[in-house]
Amino acid sequence: MYKVVLVRHGESEWNRENRFTGWTDVDLTDKGVQEAIKAGHLLQDIPYEIDIAYTSVLKRAIKTLNYILDVNDLLWIPIRKSWKLNERHYGALQGLNKEETAKKYGAEQVMLWRRSYDVPPLQITADDDRYPPKDKRYGNLTKQEIPLGESLKDTIARVLPYWEAEIVPQIKAGKKVLVVAHGNSLRALMKVLENISEEDIVDLNIPTAVPILYELDDDLKPLNRHFLGSPERVQEKIDVVANPSKIME
Amino acid sequence: MYKVVLVRHGESEWNRENRFTGWTDVDLTDKGVQEAIKAGHLLQDIPYEIDIAYTSVLKRAIKTLNYILDVNDLLWIPIRKSWKLNERHYGALQGLNKEETAKKYGAEQVMLWRRSYDVPPLQITADDDRYPPKDKRYGNLTKQEIPLGESLKDTIARVLPYWEAEIVPQIKAGKKVLVVAHGNSLRALMKVLENISEEDIVDLNIPTAVPILYELDDDLKPLNRHFLGSPERVQEKIDVVANPSKIME
Repeated sequence: MYKVVLVRHGESEWNRENRFTGWTDVDLTDKGVQEAIKAGHLLQDIPYEIDIAYTSVLKRAIKTLNYILDVNDLLWIPIRKSWKLNERHYGALQGLNKEETAKKYGAEQVMLWRRSYDVPPLQITADDDRYPPKDKRYGNLTKQEIPLGESLKDTIARVLPYWEAEIVPQIKAGKKVLVVAHGNSLRALMKVLENISEEDIVDLNIPTAVPILYELDDDLKPLNRHFLGSPERVQEKIDVVANPSKIME
Repeated sequence: MYKVVLVRHGESEWNRENRFTGWTDVDLTDKGVQEAIKAGHLLQDIPYEIDIAYTSVLKRAIKTLNYILDVNDLLWIPIRKSWKLNERHYGALQGLNKEETAKKYGAEQVMLWRRSYDVPPLQITADDDRYPPKDKRYGNLTKQEIPLGESLKDTIARVLPYWEAEIVPQIKAGKKVLVVAHGNSLRALMKVLENISEEDIVDLNIPTAVPILYELDDDLKPLNRHFLGSPERVQEKIDVVANPSKIME
Protein backbone atom coordinates (compact mmCIF):
# COMPACT_ATOMS: atom_id res chain seq x y z
CA MET A 1 0.00 0.00 0.00
CA TYR A 2 1.57 3.26 -1.14
CA LYS A 3 1.44 6.39 0.99
CA VAL A 4 1.55 10.10 0.28
CA VAL A 5 0.77 13.09 2.50
CA LEU A 6 -0.22 16.52 1.16
CA VAL A 7 -0.06 19.74 3.17
CA ARG A 8 -1.06 23.24 2.10
CA HIS A 9 1.17 25.96 3.61
CA GLY A 10 0.03 28.03 6.60
CA GLU A 11 -1.21 31.62 6.46
CA SER A 12 1.03 34.02 4.57
CA GLU A 13 1.35 37.77 4.87
CA TRP A 14 -0.68 38.30 1.71
CA ASN A 15 -3.37 35.83 2.77
CA ARG A 16 -3.84 38.14 5.71
CA GLU A 17 -3.82 41.26 3.54
CA ASN A 18 -6.15 39.61 1.05
CA ARG A 19 -3.90 40.07 -1.96
CA PHE A 20 -3.43 37.85 -4.99
CA THR A 21 -0.12 36.18 -4.20
CA GLY A 22 0.71 33.65 -6.91
CA TRP A 23 4.48 33.49 -7.30
CA THR A 24 5.18 36.45 -5.00
CA ASP A 25 7.52 35.09 -2.35
CA VAL A 26 5.79 36.32 0.79
CA ASP A 27 6.59 34.96 4.24
CA LEU A 28 4.41 33.09 6.72
CA THR A 29 2.65 35.15 9.37
CA ASP A 30 3.07 34.19 13.03
CA LYS A 31 -0.26 32.44 12.71
CA GLY A 32 1.06 30.59 9.67
CA VAL A 33 4.09 29.45 11.68
CA GLN A 34 1.82 28.15 14.44
CA GLU A 35 -0.31 26.36 11.85
CA ALA A 36 2.79 24.70 10.41
CA ILE A 37 3.96 23.54 13.85
CA LYS A 38 0.47 22.20 14.54
CA ALA A 39 0.56 20.30 11.24
CA GLY A 40 3.85 18.80 12.38
CA HIS A 41 2.31 17.63 15.65
CA LEU A 42 -0.66 16.11 13.81
CA LEU A 43 1.76 14.13 11.65
CA GLN A 44 3.43 12.66 14.74
CA ASP A 45 0.40 10.39 15.16
CA ILE A 46 0.74 8.50 11.89
CA PRO A 47 2.23 5.03 12.21
CA TYR A 48 5.04 5.52 9.69
CA GLU A 49 7.83 7.99 8.99
CA ILE A 50 8.15 10.27 6.00
CA ASP A 51 11.15 9.34 3.80
CA ILE A 52 11.34 12.25 1.38
CA ALA A 53 9.65 15.62 0.96
CA TYR A 54 8.75 17.79 -2.01
CA THR A 55 7.94 21.47 -2.00
CA SER A 56 7.91 24.57 -4.18
CA VAL A 57 10.57 27.29 -4.39
CA LEU A 58 8.37 29.68 -2.39
CA LYS A 59 9.30 30.30 1.23
CA ARG A 60 5.80 29.99 2.66
CA ALA A 61 5.77 26.34 1.56
CA ILE A 62 9.44 25.65 2.34
CA LYS A 63 9.10 27.05 5.85
CA THR A 64 5.88 25.14 6.48
CA LEU A 65 7.79 22.00 5.46
CA ASN A 66 10.77 22.85 7.67
CA TYR A 67 8.56 23.36 10.73
CA ILE A 68 6.79 20.07 10.07
CA LEU A 69 10.09 18.23 9.70
CA ASP A 70 11.57 19.84 12.80
CA VAL A 71 8.63 18.77 14.99
CA ASN A 72 8.99 15.23 13.66
CA ASP A 73 12.79 15.13 14.04
CA LEU A 74 13.07 14.64 10.29
CA LEU A 75 15.09 17.65 9.18
CA TRP A 76 17.69 15.18 7.88
CA ILE A 77 15.52 13.65 5.13
CA PRO A 78 16.01 14.71 1.51
CA ILE A 79 13.95 17.68 0.30
CA ARG A 80 13.34 18.39 -3.36
CA LYS A 81 12.17 21.87 -4.37
CA SER A 82 10.71 22.76 -7.73
CA TRP A 83 8.96 25.75 -9.26
CA LYS A 84 6.58 23.19 -10.80
CA LEU A 85 4.94 22.88 -7.38
CA ASN A 86 4.53 26.66 -7.07
CA GLU A 87 1.15 28.31 -6.61
CA ARG A 88 -0.80 29.25 -9.75
CA HIS A 89 0.88 32.28 -11.38
CA TYR A 90 -1.69 35.04 -11.11
CA GLY A 91 -0.26 37.27 -13.85
CA ALA A 92 -1.06 40.97 -13.61
CA LEU A 93 -3.32 40.36 -10.60
CA GLN A 94 -0.37 39.50 -8.34
CA GLY A 95 -0.10 42.10 -5.59
CA LEU A 96 -3.61 43.52 -6.03
CA ASN A 97 -6.00 43.18 -3.12
CA LYS A 98 -9.62 42.18 -3.29
CA GLU A 99 -11.01 45.71 -3.29
CA GLU A 100 -8.59 47.06 -5.88
CA THR A 101 -9.24 44.18 -8.20
CA ALA A 102 -13.02 44.33 -7.92
CA LYS A 103 -12.99 48.08 -8.44
CA LYS A 104 -10.72 47.84 -11.46
CA TYR A 105 -12.24 44.86 -13.23
CA GLY A 106 -15.64 44.22 -11.65
CA ALA A 107 -16.57 41.56 -9.13
CA GLU A 108 -17.92 39.21 -11.77
CA GLN A 109 -14.72 39.22 -13.79
CA VAL A 110 -12.70 38.59 -10.64
CA MET A 111 -14.84 35.58 -9.72
CA LEU A 112 -14.37 34.26 -13.26
CA TRP A 113 -10.61 34.53 -12.94
CA ARG A 114 -10.67 32.89 -9.56
CA ARG A 115 -13.19 30.16 -10.01
CA SER A 116 -13.08 29.09 -13.65
CA TYR A 117 -10.99 26.20 -14.86
CA ASP A 118 -9.41 27.55 -17.99
CA VAL A 119 -9.71 31.36 -17.95
CA PRO A 120 -6.25 32.86 -17.41
CA PRO A 121 -5.84 36.14 -15.53
CA LEU A 122 -4.56 39.30 -17.22
CA GLN A 123 -1.11 38.51 -18.53
CA ILE A 124 2.13 40.24 -17.56
CA THR A 125 4.71 41.20 -20.17
CA ALA A 126 8.47 40.74 -20.26
CA ASP A 127 9.09 44.29 -19.06
CA ASP A 128 7.07 43.68 -15.89
CA ASP A 129 8.97 43.36 -12.60
CA ARG A 130 6.98 40.19 -12.01
CA TYR A 131 8.28 38.54 -15.20
CA PRO A 132 9.65 35.27 -13.76
CA PRO A 133 13.13 35.25 -15.40
CA LYS A 134 13.95 38.44 -13.49
CA ASP A 135 14.16 36.22 -10.42
CA LYS A 136 17.24 33.98 -10.41
CA ARG A 137 15.30 30.93 -9.27
CA TYR A 138 13.43 30.97 -12.59
CA GLY A 139 16.51 31.64 -14.71
CA ASN A 140 16.53 28.13 -16.17
CA LEU A 141 12.94 28.01 -17.41
CA THR A 142 12.50 27.62 -21.13
CA LYS A 143 10.57 30.30 -22.99
CA GLN A 144 7.58 27.96 -23.16
CA GLU A 145 7.69 27.23 -19.46
CA ILE A 146 7.66 30.87 -18.34
CA PRO A 147 4.16 31.69 -17.10
CA LEU A 148 2.69 35.12 -17.80
CA GLY A 149 -0.51 34.35 -15.92
CA GLU A 150 -1.96 30.86 -15.48
CA SER A 151 -5.45 29.42 -15.46
CA LEU A 152 -5.97 26.51 -13.08
CA LYS A 153 -5.72 24.33 -16.18
CA ASP A 154 -2.28 25.80 -16.96
CA THR A 155 -1.13 25.17 -13.39
CA ILE A 156 -2.28 21.57 -13.50
CA ALA A 157 -0.53 21.15 -16.86
CA ARG A 158 2.87 21.95 -15.33
CA VAL A 159 2.33 20.23 -11.96
CA LEU A 160 1.34 16.82 -13.34
CA PRO A 161 4.45 16.09 -15.44
CA TYR A 162 6.55 16.78 -12.33
CA TRP A 163 4.32 14.52 -10.26
CA GLU A 164 4.67 11.74 -12.82
CA ALA A 165 8.39 12.12 -13.43
CA GLU A 166 9.68 12.89 -9.95
CA ILE A 167 7.20 12.00 -7.21
CA VAL A 168 5.41 8.90 -8.52
CA PRO A 169 8.67 6.91 -8.93
CA GLN A 170 9.50 7.58 -5.28
CA ILE A 171 6.03 6.47 -4.17
CA LYS A 172 6.30 3.32 -6.29
CA ALA A 173 9.70 2.62 -4.76
CA GLY A 174 7.86 2.37 -1.46
CA LYS A 175 8.92 5.75 -0.06
CA LYS A 176 6.51 7.61 2.17
CA VAL A 177 6.29 10.97 0.45
CA LEU A 178 5.29 14.35 1.88
CA VAL A 179 4.33 17.20 -0.47
CA VAL A 180 3.99 20.69 1.01
CA ALA A 181 2.63 23.09 -1.57
CA HIS A 182 -0.12 25.54 -2.46
CA GLY A 183 -3.88 25.63 -2.98
CA ASN A 184 -3.74 25.22 -6.74
CA SER A 185 -0.71 22.95 -7.11
CA LEU A 186 -2.34 20.64 -4.56
CA ARG A 187 -5.62 20.80 -6.51
CA ALA A 188 -3.66 19.34 -9.41
CA LEU A 189 -2.49 16.42 -7.27
CA MET A 190 -5.92 15.77 -5.73
CA LYS A 191 -7.52 15.98 -9.17
CA VAL A 192 -5.30 13.25 -10.55
CA LEU A 193 -5.41 11.10 -7.40
CA GLU A 194 -9.17 11.25 -7.03
CA ASN A 195 -10.03 11.61 -10.70
CA ILE A 196 -11.95 14.84 -10.07
CA SER A 197 -13.58 16.52 -13.07
CA GLU A 198 -12.64 19.97 -14.39
CA GLU A 199 -16.02 21.25 -13.21
CA ASP A 200 -15.60 19.97 -9.68
CA ILE A 201 -11.93 20.78 -9.09
CA VAL A 202 -12.57 24.54 -9.02
CA ASP A 203 -14.85 24.01 -6.02
CA LEU A 204 -12.42 21.83 -4.09
CA ASN A 205 -11.27 23.80 -1.06
CA ILE A 206 -8.10 22.54 0.55
CA PRO A 207 -7.66 23.59 4.19
CA THR A 208 -4.33 25.20 5.16
CA ALA A 209 -1.81 23.21 7.19
CA VAL A 210 -4.03 20.13 7.55
CA PRO A 211 -2.08 16.97 6.60
CA ILE A 212 -4.07 14.97 4.04
CA LEU A 213 -3.10 11.29 4.10
CA TYR A 214 -3.65 9.05 1.12
CA GLU A 215 -3.23 5.33 1.00
CA LEU A 216 -2.98 4.19 -2.60
CA ASP A 217 -3.29 0.88 -4.42
CA ASP A 218 -0.87 -0.45 -7.04
CA ASP A 219 -2.35 1.87 -9.66
CA LEU A 220 -2.09 4.84 -7.29
CA LYS A 221 -5.86 4.93 -6.86
CA PRO A 222 -6.85 6.01 -3.34
CA LEU A 223 -7.91 3.28 -0.95
CA ASN A 224 -8.67 6.00 1.54
CA ARG A 225 -8.07 9.64 2.28
CA HIS A 226 -7.87 11.07 5.75
CA PHE A 227 -7.66 14.68 6.97
CA LEU A 228 -5.60 14.75 10.18
CA GLY A 229 -7.00 16.63 13.17
CA SER A 230 -10.36 16.99 14.85
CA PRO A 231 -13.29 17.06 12.36
CA GLU A 232 -14.34 20.43 13.77
CA ARG A 233 -10.93 21.98 13.15
CA VAL A 234 -10.73 20.55 9.65
CA GLN A 235 -14.22 21.79 8.77
CA GLU A 236 -13.46 25.22 10.18
CA LYS A 237 -10.35 25.45 7.99
CA ILE A 238 -12.24 24.28 4.92
CA ASP A 239 -14.89 26.93 5.56
CA VAL A 240 -12.24 29.65 5.70
CA VAL A 241 -10.76 28.80 2.33
CA ALA A 242 -14.19 28.12 0.80
CA ASN A 243 -15.14 31.75 1.38
CA PRO A 244 -13.45 33.65 -1.44
CA SER A 245 -13.55 36.86 0.52
CA LYS A 246 -11.44 35.24 3.21
CA ILE A 247 -8.42 33.88 1.40
CA MET A 248 -6.70 34.71 -1.87
CA GLU A 249 -4.22 32.43 -3.54
CA MET B 1 37.87 32.12 -9.82
CA TYR B 2 36.02 29.46 -7.86
CA LYS B 3 34.22 30.23 -4.62
CA VAL B 4 33.25 28.25 -1.55
CA VAL B 5 32.02 29.36 1.86
CA LEU B 6 32.36 27.27 5.01
CA VAL B 7 30.35 27.82 8.20
CA ARG B 8 30.55 25.94 11.48
CA HIS B 9 27.14 25.58 13.21
CA GLY B 10 26.16 27.81 16.13
CA GLU B 11 26.15 26.81 19.79
CA SER B 12 24.32 23.56 20.54
CA GLU B 13 22.74 22.37 23.76
CA TRP B 14 25.65 20.07 24.46
CA ASN B 15 28.25 22.70 23.67
CA ARG B 16 26.66 24.62 26.50
CA GLU B 17 26.58 21.58 28.78
CA ASN B 18 30.14 20.73 27.83
CA ARG B 19 29.39 17.20 26.65
CA PHE B 20 31.00 15.20 23.89
CA THR B 21 28.40 15.45 21.14
CA GLY B 22 29.67 13.74 18.01
CA TRP B 23 26.70 12.26 16.16
CA THR B 24 24.19 12.98 18.94
CA ASP B 25 21.49 15.06 17.26
CA VAL B 26 21.20 17.92 19.74
CA ASP B 27 19.47 21.19 18.89
CA LEU B 28 20.84 24.73 18.71
CA THR B 29 20.52 26.86 21.82
CA ASP B 30 18.87 30.29 21.54
CA LYS B 31 22.39 31.69 21.39
CA GLY B 32 23.17 29.26 18.56
CA VAL B 33 20.11 30.49 16.66
CA GLN B 34 21.23 34.10 17.08
CA GLU B 35 24.73 33.15 15.89
CA ALA B 36 23.25 31.51 12.78
CA ILE B 37 21.13 34.57 11.97
CA LYS B 38 24.22 36.77 12.45
CA ALA B 39 26.16 34.52 10.06
CA GLY B 40 23.35 35.02 7.56
CA HIS B 41 23.61 38.79 7.87
CA LEU B 42 27.39 38.66 7.44
CA LEU B 43 26.91 36.72 4.21
CA GLN B 44 24.64 39.43 2.83
CA ASP B 45 27.73 41.57 2.24
CA ILE B 46 29.43 39.28 -0.24
CA PRO B 47 29.12 40.33 -3.87
CA TYR B 48 27.68 37.06 -5.17
CA GLU B 49 24.85 34.66 -4.36
CA ILE B 50 25.16 31.13 -3.10
CA ASP B 51 23.87 28.58 -5.65
CA ILE B 52 23.84 25.34 -3.68
CA ALA B 53 24.39 24.30 -0.07
CA TYR B 54 25.75 21.20 1.62
CA THR B 55 25.27 20.13 5.20
CA SER B 56 25.27 17.12 7.49
CA VAL B 57 22.25 15.12 8.68
CA LEU B 58 22.49 16.71 12.15
CA LYS B 59 19.95 19.38 13.02
CA ARG B 60 22.40 21.85 14.56
CA ALA B 61 24.04 22.20 11.15
CA ILE B 62 20.82 21.97 9.10
CA LYS B 63 19.13 24.66 11.20
CA THR B 64 22.19 26.92 11.04
CA LEU B 65 22.01 26.56 7.26
CA ASN B 66 18.26 27.25 7.16
CA TYR B 67 18.65 30.45 9.20
CA ILE B 68 21.48 31.61 6.94
CA LEU B 69 19.43 30.92 3.81
CA ASP B 70 16.33 32.60 5.22
CA VAL B 71 18.20 35.83 6.01
CA ASN B 72 19.59 35.81 2.46
CA ASP B 73 16.24 34.97 0.82
CA LEU B 74 17.77 31.77 -0.51
CA LEU B 75 15.60 29.07 1.03
CA TRP B 76 14.73 27.99 -2.53
CA ILE B 77 18.25 26.81 -3.49
CA PRO B 78 19.06 23.09 -3.52
CA ILE B 79 20.39 21.63 -0.27
CA ARG B 80 22.27 18.33 -0.12
CA LYS B 81 22.59 16.58 3.22
CA SER B 82 25.01 13.77 3.96
CA TRP B 83 26.21 11.91 7.02
CA LYS B 84 29.68 12.22 5.49
CA LEU B 85 29.70 15.86 6.63
CA ASN B 86 28.73 14.90 10.20
CA GLU B 87 30.85 15.78 13.19
CA ARG B 88 33.56 13.31 14.23
CA HIS B 89 31.89 10.25 15.83
CA TYR B 90 33.08 10.30 19.42
CA GLY B 91 32.35 6.63 20.19
CA ALA B 92 31.76 5.77 23.83
CA LEU B 93 32.57 9.34 24.89
CA GLN B 94 29.37 10.71 23.33
CA GLY B 95 27.14 12.10 26.05
CA LEU B 96 29.82 12.32 28.73
CA ASN B 97 30.70 15.74 30.06
CA LYS B 98 34.15 17.10 30.71
CA GLU B 99 34.22 16.28 34.41
CA GLU B 100 32.84 12.76 34.03
CA THR B 101 35.31 11.95 31.31
CA ALA B 102 38.34 13.33 33.13
CA LYS B 103 37.35 11.50 36.33
CA LYS B 104 36.81 8.23 34.50
CA TYR B 105 39.81 8.23 32.16
CA GLY B 106 42.18 10.91 33.44
CA ALA B 107 42.73 14.38 31.99
CA GLU B 108 45.76 13.33 29.99
CA GLN B 109 43.92 10.54 28.19
CA VAL B 110 41.05 12.91 27.39
CA MET B 111 43.41 15.47 25.86
CA LEU B 112 44.96 12.68 23.79
CA TRP B 113 41.55 11.68 22.44
CA ARG B 114 40.67 15.26 21.71
CA ARG B 115 43.87 16.64 20.31
CA SER B 116 45.68 13.79 18.61
CA TYR B 117 45.35 13.13 14.90
CA ASP B 118 44.94 9.39 14.77
CA VAL B 119 43.97 8.15 18.24
CA PRO B 120 40.34 6.98 18.16
CA PRO B 121 38.16 7.33 21.25
CA LEU B 122 36.82 4.32 23.14
CA GLN B 123 34.69 2.36 20.70
CA ILE B 124 31.02 1.56 21.00
CA THR B 125 29.66 -1.88 20.21
CA ALA B 126 26.65 -2.97 18.17
CA ASP B 127 24.49 -3.39 21.26
CA ASP B 128 25.02 0.25 22.24
CA ASP B 129 22.10 2.65 21.81
CA ARG B 130 24.51 4.94 20.01
CA TYR B 131 25.32 2.32 17.33
CA PRO B 132 24.57 4.32 14.17
CA PRO B 133 22.35 1.79 12.32
CA LYS B 134 19.82 2.06 15.16
CA ASP B 135 19.02 5.50 13.75
CA LYS B 136 17.11 5.32 10.45
CA ARG B 137 19.21 8.03 8.83
CA TYR B 138 22.21 5.69 9.00
CA GLY B 139 20.33 2.62 7.82
CA ASN B 140 22.05 2.60 4.43
CA LEU B 141 25.65 2.67 5.64
CA THR B 142 27.76 -0.31 4.71
CA LYS B 143 29.35 -2.29 7.52
CA GLN B 144 32.70 -0.66 6.71
CA GLU B 145 31.24 2.82 6.79
CA ILE B 146 29.61 2.51 10.23
CA PRO B 147 31.78 4.40 12.71
CA LEU B 148 32.24 3.02 16.21
CA GLY B 149 34.37 5.97 17.30
CA GLU B 150 36.51 8.05 14.96
CA SER B 151 39.91 9.69 15.21
CA LEU B 152 40.23 12.99 13.37
CA LYS B 153 42.05 10.97 10.72
CA ASP B 154 39.02 8.68 10.35
CA THR B 155 36.70 11.67 10.03
CA ILE B 156 38.85 13.23 7.35
CA ALA B 157 38.96 9.89 5.53
CA ARG B 158 35.17 9.88 5.07
CA VAL B 159 34.71 13.62 4.48
CA LEU B 160 37.22 13.94 1.65
CA PRO B 161 35.72 11.39 -0.78
CA TYR B 162 32.39 13.20 -0.44
CA TRP B 163 34.09 16.55 -1.03
CA GLU B 164 35.78 15.18 -4.14
CA ALA B 165 32.78 13.34 -5.55
CA GLU B 166 29.94 15.72 -4.72
CA ILE B 167 31.13 19.22 -3.87
CA VAL B 168 34.19 19.75 -6.09
CA PRO B 169 32.25 19.07 -9.32
CA GLN B 170 29.74 21.78 -8.35
CA ILE B 171 32.54 24.25 -7.60
CA LYS B 172 34.23 23.44 -10.90
CA ALA B 173 30.91 23.96 -12.69
CA GLY B 174 31.10 27.54 -11.42
CA LYS B 175 28.55 27.20 -8.64
CA LYS B 176 29.03 29.24 -5.50
CA VAL B 177 28.91 26.59 -2.81
CA LEU B 178 28.08 26.93 0.88
CA VAL B 179 29.01 24.16 3.32
CA VAL B 180 27.56 24.30 6.83
CA ALA B 181 29.06 21.60 8.99
CA HIS B 182 31.00 20.81 12.16
CA GLY B 183 34.36 21.52 13.77
CA ASN B 184 36.00 18.33 12.56
CA SER B 185 34.32 17.86 9.19
CA LEU B 186 35.33 21.43 8.38
CA ARG B 187 38.88 20.71 9.55
CA ALA B 188 38.93 18.06 6.82
CA LEU B 189 37.96 20.62 4.19
CA MET B 190 40.38 23.29 5.42
CA LYS B 191 43.16 20.69 5.60
CA VAL B 192 42.75 19.77 1.95
CA LEU B 193 42.15 23.33 0.76
CA GLU B 194 45.14 24.81 2.58
CA ASN B 195 47.33 21.72 2.54
CA ILE B 196 47.66 21.72 6.32
CA SER B 197 49.81 18.99 7.90
CA GLU B 198 48.49 16.29 10.24
CA GLU B 199 50.44 17.93 13.06
CA ASP B 200 48.96 21.36 12.49
CA ILE B 201 45.35 20.44 11.73
CA VAL B 202 44.66 19.35 15.32
CA ASP B 203 45.46 22.88 16.45
CA LEU B 204 43.26 24.60 13.89
CA ASN B 205 40.36 26.18 15.76
CA ILE B 206 37.37 27.05 13.60
CA PRO B 207 35.10 29.73 15.06
CA THR B 208 31.37 28.97 15.24
CA ALA B 209 28.99 30.66 12.81
CA VAL B 210 31.68 32.77 11.15
CA PRO B 211 31.45 32.47 7.34
CA ILE B 212 34.85 31.56 5.91
CA LEU B 213 35.16 32.63 2.27
CA TYR B 214 37.62 30.99 -0.06
CA GLU B 215 38.49 32.10 -3.55
CA LEU B 216 40.20 29.27 -5.39
CA ASP B 217 42.30 28.97 -8.53
CA ASP B 218 41.80 26.37 -11.27
CA ASP B 219 43.46 23.71 -9.14
CA LEU B 220 41.28 24.64 -6.14
CA LYS B 221 44.24 26.18 -4.36
CA PRO B 222 43.21 29.18 -2.26
CA LEU B 223 43.95 32.61 -3.72
CA ASN B 224 42.65 34.04 -0.50
CA ARG B 225 40.67 33.20 2.60
CA HIS B 226 38.54 35.67 4.48
CA PHE B 227 36.70 35.36 7.81
CA LEU B 228 33.56 37.52 7.64
CA GLY B 229 32.86 39.89 10.50
CA SER B 230 34.87 42.27 12.62
CA PRO B 231 38.39 41.00 13.43
CA GLU B 232 37.60 41.34 17.15
CA ARG B 233 34.50 39.17 16.90
CA VAL B 234 36.31 36.53 14.84
CA GLN B 235 39.24 36.42 17.27
CA GLU B 236 36.90 36.19 20.22
CA LYS B 237 35.15 33.22 18.64
CA ILE B 238 38.44 31.52 17.81
CA ASP B 239 39.57 31.98 21.40
CA VAL B 240 36.41 30.31 22.68
CA VAL B 241 36.88 27.17 20.60
CA ALA B 242 40.64 27.15 21.17
CA ASN B 243 40.08 26.66 24.87
CA PRO B 244 39.26 22.99 25.26
CA SER B 245 37.49 23.58 28.53
CA LYS B 246 35.05 25.87 26.72
CA ILE B 247 33.71 23.81 23.85
CA MET B 248 33.41 20.10 23.18
CA GLU B 249 32.76 18.66 19.75
